[in-house]
Amino acid sequence: MNTLGKILSLTTFGESHGSAMGGILDGFPAGVSIDVDKLQEFVDLRRPRQSVGSSQRDEQDRVELLSGLRHGQSLGTPIGFIVRNTDARSSDYDGMHNCYRPSHADYTWEAKYGIRDPRGGGRASARETVARVVAGGLAVQALEQLGITIFSAIVQVGPHRGLTPESMSDVIRYAADDGDTLGGIVECVVSGVPVGLGEPVFGKLQAQLAAAMMSIPSVHGFEYGDGFDMASKRGSDVMDVFEKREDGSICTTTNHSGGIQGGITNGEDIIMRIAFKPVPTLMRDVPTIDRDGYPVVLHPRGRHDACVLPRALPIVNAMAALVILDNYLIKKTNVL
Amino acid sequence: MNTLGKILSLTTFGESHGSAMGGILDGFPAGVSIDVDKLQEFVDLRRPRQSVGSSQRDEQDRVELLSGLRHGQSLGTPIGFIVRNTDARSSDYDGMHNCYRPSHADYTWEAKYGIRDPRGGGRASARETVARVVAGGLAVQALEQLGITIFSAIVQVGPHRGLTPESMSDVIRYAADDGDTLGGIVECVVSGVPVGLGEPVFGKLQAQLAAAMMSIPSVHGFEYGDGFDMASKRGSDVMDVFEKREDGSICTTTNHSGGIQGGITNGEDIIMRIAFKPVPTLMRDVPTIDRDGYPVVLHPRGRHDACVLPRALPIVNAMAALVILDNYLIKKTNVL
Amino acid sequence: MNTLGKILSLTTFGESHGSAMGGILDGFPAGVSIDVDKLQEFVDLRRPRQSVGSSQRDEQDRVELLSGLRHGQSLGTPIGFIVRNTDARSSDYDGMHNCYRPSHADYTWEAKYGIRDPRGGGRASARETVARVVAGGLAVQALEQLGITIFSAIVQVGPHRGLTPESMSDVIRYAADDGDTLGGIVECVVSGVPVGLGEPVFGKLQAQLAAAMMSIPSVHGFEYGDGFDMASKRGSDVMDVFEKREDGSICTTTNHSGGIQGGITNGEDIIMRIAFKPVPTLMRDVPTIDRDGYPVVLHPRGRHDACVLPRALPIVNAMAALVILDNYLIKKTNVL
Amino acid sequence: MNTLGKILSLTTFGESHGSAMGGILDGFPAGVSIDVDKLQEFVDLRRPRQSVGSSQRDEQDRVELLSGLRHGQSLGTPIGFIVRNTDARSSDYDGMHNCYRPSHADYTWEAKYGIRDPRGGGRASARETVARVVAGGLAVQALEQLGITIFSAIVQVGPHRGLTPESMSDVIRYAADDGDTLGGIVECVVSGVPVGLGEPVFGKLQAQLAAAMMSIPSVHGFEYGDGFDMASKRGSDVMDVFEKREDGSICTTTNHSGGIQGGITNGEDIIMRIAFKPVPTLMRDVPTIDRDGYPVVLHPRGRHDACVLPRALPIVNAMAALVILDNYLIKKTNVL
Repeated sequence: MNTLGKILSLTTFGESHGSAMGGILDGFPAGVSIDVDKLQEFVDLRRPRQSVGSSQRDEQDRVELLSGLRHGQSLGTPIGFIVRNTDARSSDYDGMHNCYRPSHADYTWEAKYGIRDPRGGGRASARETVARVVAGGLAVQALEQLGITIFSAIVQVGPHRGLTPESMSDVIRYAADDGDTLGGIVECVVSGVPVGLGEPVFGKLQAQLAAAMMSIPSVHGFEYGDGFDMASKRGSDVMDVFEKREDGSICTTTNHSGGIQGGITNGEDIIMRIAFKPVPTLMRDVPTIDRDGYPVVLHPRGRHDACVLPRALPIVNAMAALVILDNYLIKKTNVL
Repeated sequence: MNTLGKILSLTTFGESHGSAMGGILDGFPAGVSIDVDKLQEFVDLRRPRQSVGSSQRDEQDRVELLSGLRHGQSLGTPIGFIVRNTDARSSDYDGMHNCYRPSHADYTWEAKYGIRDPRGGGRASARETVARVVAGGLAVQALEQLGITIFSAIVQVGPHRGLTPESMSDVIRYAADDGDTLGGIVECVVSGVPVGLGEPVFGKLQAQLAAAMMSIPSVHGFEYGDGFDMASKRGSDVMDVFEKREDGSICTTTNHSGGIQGGITNGEDIIMRIAFKPVPTLMRDVPTIDRDGYPVVLHPRGRHDACVLPRALPIVNAMAALVILDNYLIKKTNVL
Repeated sequence: MNTLGKILSLTTFGESHGSAMGGILDGFPAGVSIDVDKLQEFVDLRRPRQSVGSSQRDEQDRVELLSGLRHGQSLGTPIGFIVRNTDARSSDYDGMHNCYRPSHADYTWEAKYGIRDPRGGGRASARETVARVVAGGLAVQALEQLGITIFSAIVQVGPHRGLTPESMSDVIRYAADDGDTLGGIVECVVSGVPVGLGEPVFGKLQAQLAAAMMSIPSVHGFEYGDGFDMASKRGSDVMDVFEKREDGSICTTTNHSGGIQGGITNGEDIIMRIAFKPVPTLMRDVPTIDRDGYPVVLHPRGRHDACVLPRALPIVNAMAALVILDNYLIKKTNVL
Repeated sequence: MNTLGKILSLTTFGESHGSAMGGILDGFPAGVSIDVDKLQEFVDLRRPRQSVGSSQRDEQDRVELLSGLRHGQSLGTPIGFIVRNTDARSSDYDGMHNCYRPSHADYTWEAKYGIRDPRGGGRASARETVARVVAGGLAVQALEQLGITIFSAIVQVGPHRGLTPESMSDVIRYAADDGDTLGGIVECVVSGVPVGLGEPVFGKLQAQLAAAMMSIPSVHGFEYGDGFDMASKRGSDVMDVFEKREDGSICTTTNHSGGIQGGITNGEDIIMRIAFKPVPTLMRDVPTIDRDGYPVVLHPRGRHDACVLPRALPIVNAMAALVILDNYLIKKTNVL
């Protein structure tokens, strides 16, 4: 249930205010060179306090790699790792254990398990994603050695598209000053993908990518290629016609399909867009109810993101990398 | 790879022009009453020739249930079933074995396996979905006994929303007459869902639903609750405030979250929208290349759907039912 | 639950007196030549009525391959197959639906599911193994193309070892005439195995093989290499010393380890022994109780094996083949 | 590959001389009271230096539980844990990186991955089992709350049965003084098991238990009930006749079946025996070859067990507990 992937599989653990987050990346191929400093830099991209409107929780997020590597090379054994929680301020959550914050997982979680850790949202916190970024960072390095690269960009914040970083900061600060939060859209492009990755039926590559992206906290939508826009089109408008390149290889002249046909990559760029809702933690008084159904008002406490998009980029990249590398390995088993 | 689900798991097989499609539904609970006639009616909803613009291939789609049931009750053992292919017209695909149809899986499939069955698209054909509908129909009956119902509707065809069935027929016929095809959007609503279904991290219910829906041929986008629209909103606009009902139960006054919070159901309706591309099989000459890269022109043959949306409704319902029932069973294991 | 294997995975269905047994073999590599007649011959080896003391149920066991193959080659898609049940005589089980036969699965099955099909033991019948033999026969053909062969022999029947086929027939007939049954031991040897198959921790090759063999009805013990005898030995007695062959390859001078070291093959023959209990279906009056706990006497009916060992050989080979081929495919994913 | 179990699933990591061993126990039910001191005591049972002839490596094996518990109760979230390696003496393995120790995993491991960590056997070391014991200790506590208990005993060391602890020490010391090692047999009994645990076909409880036990380093054989002895018997000798107890419940008058019939528990004690080979690390000069095939002599170094049986008891218990608890949870999904 806390595991993703078939051959390359990541299992994670950790509550936001517990002693550590961590995971095990199993099935990572042997003999891959790993640059640990570069991995830390990748993880640092999702650290809080890096951008305007992001949480002021001051986590160093030092990655401890506990196994699976030696002399900068992967051993083929599971890579266990932890990231300590060092700046949790659990007092912010005093008195919250019997309140259900609106649009959070407090109520649903308690209904499921009959028990929950209210401090910082427990395991439902987006802090959980730090383990994904560690594992994804390892996958990114393996993919780079195969010539496969992943790039994500924020293409929308709130209703605004085409923002410069400076104007994006302004937009976020403006909402944050208001005690409010903003959603947005991330576009992710994977280049250099070999032809033939993905499984034809339930494991179509778009299905695996959708599951991976929709499992990121706050994500409410996923599309690839021309996505929802394709619904309004005619078949003759969105066909990707093949042609032969000078070098004899085959490509398509357009890429409405987003690099995937019949669930399997065709060698063009994989293009997808992921929609994030505005996080429901406002810096304002919020009305809700407690466990007994009595109305209560939550006063703003804790340190939270006014807009998660900047910190979401490495998470999206990590999820894409894990899925692509897994499918790269699976493809090897298609013939004797 | 051809399996979906953890406790309730469906594995399918079959090529479009092979002797039969079929599957095994494993983990289906024991003691559930199954109405076989009702199951056949459910499967008939996706039969071709039922609606304007749908394929003229005349398959009876008689479901043969081979195991797992006795005296109208499930035994807890795997339910094996087949649906014979009786009206395949493979001659329509003569000469296609070395051509790659644009935006189809011919090229990607061959790159993956080095071999493919070109007749009717082989396993890449949407005929594969008949096995999903059989299994999903069984899940639907189990869910009904729990008071959980699923309903889907076409909310957009091409650029048109709010169509009556009659005007929808006109719109599809208009494109078909032109040798062209249309995409669209299906909305699916699950009602009567217990609180607490879904897994918190990689198995968030929206992630499982997205994977299930994105695995349907032609689907290019998935969203739940307010979906992509949420990206443009502020947090204060999309919060679902809790309240206590007269009967003491807890609900939310709005449902921007689409019935899922933190990956787990909150008891409100699950609402999702699925975007279908227009299928790439035109009834016109289409330019493409053959295996050696030489340009060829494909002349229209075969029997195809001008718009898959009407036949997609039972498929969407089937996928939803399989995911929800699986999670219902998984939830039972959350406590001793 | 009814699935075996990770990349190459077999899912089966079928009750003894239902309409058919069958399965889906998924993950079978593409491009493997399959000789269908040879497959049928392999399946025929486990048919009843082939040897002394075996059941007189007259099943033709014709294999219907429904998908995954074309022109004698595997497509890489799931191979669906069925074997019809044609000679079930359910009347033999009249009145048995509320009796629990001793040492059978009647009582445990009913406790688990609350319902069971009493005819012929339902899914608990060893007839279930026909699906394993079909799938295993396909795996055997793939392995042969890799130079890997599997051979099994009966090394013990009842207390007797080193029997000729003729004396084995006498021993079995002698017990059968007495209305009794016999157990025994099968030894299985896999030759031509590449070095490096098997997973190091929970998936040690001996663990996978043990699970596969212990899942065969009536099996009560598994050992590999020197097995239980090793328990009485000193380390210095059972070490397999390495040496270099003339051709530069590495081998061991002895094979106490049975071809597996640290869970991974070393290139020597894999050797294992599987102990079968005598089946509990006697051709004598047998005392037991009914569902309410009242004593009843079961009179001999039905057609049963006095000794399952002769029919067990292809089943053992099938299970070994499925495990070895799966691990052969998994090994491909160990490096980029 | 490094994961065991379906609902309750354990994934482990760690090399013998890396910084830590550890694991994630996922699917552990919520609301179970956990006594952390008792858990540590359970883990201490497999610590080295506890018994005669066991390794002198001085590991404290302090369990760090990093998540999944709060106020002594399980949260239903994954339980991450580590055990630091504090007394590794890697210099003992200098010069071993290109030698293959006989009957060890050095050669097979290198063939599989092309790379290995030679220090202390890397991940192939039995030190890996510490993570199993941590997870198994948690499962044991959950089972106790269900009235299920597990007990193991050494029933044979070398050729000797029925030894007192004192004579057992003598026997082991005698072999150790000789620089040699001893195998043996462990018997494990699970009591208080509910009727109906286990899956009928590939997941028969004996198959799952066999896989779990055969995955323990040095294990070469597994049997349950009367095991290999049943092979020599007639059916009439080994039938377990049912009877009704005074309290109305059903039991069998004998237990040749070892508590499992048709792969499912019948409520009687589960009884199994596990055969361990003598470990191949002698305190004598041992001849072998290096990577290039040249003969070398290994001089005794490192700290090793002369007989692993005493330390194996908690490992066997742990594996049994993990399998039984998993099946207890799976059974909950058999009905709606």
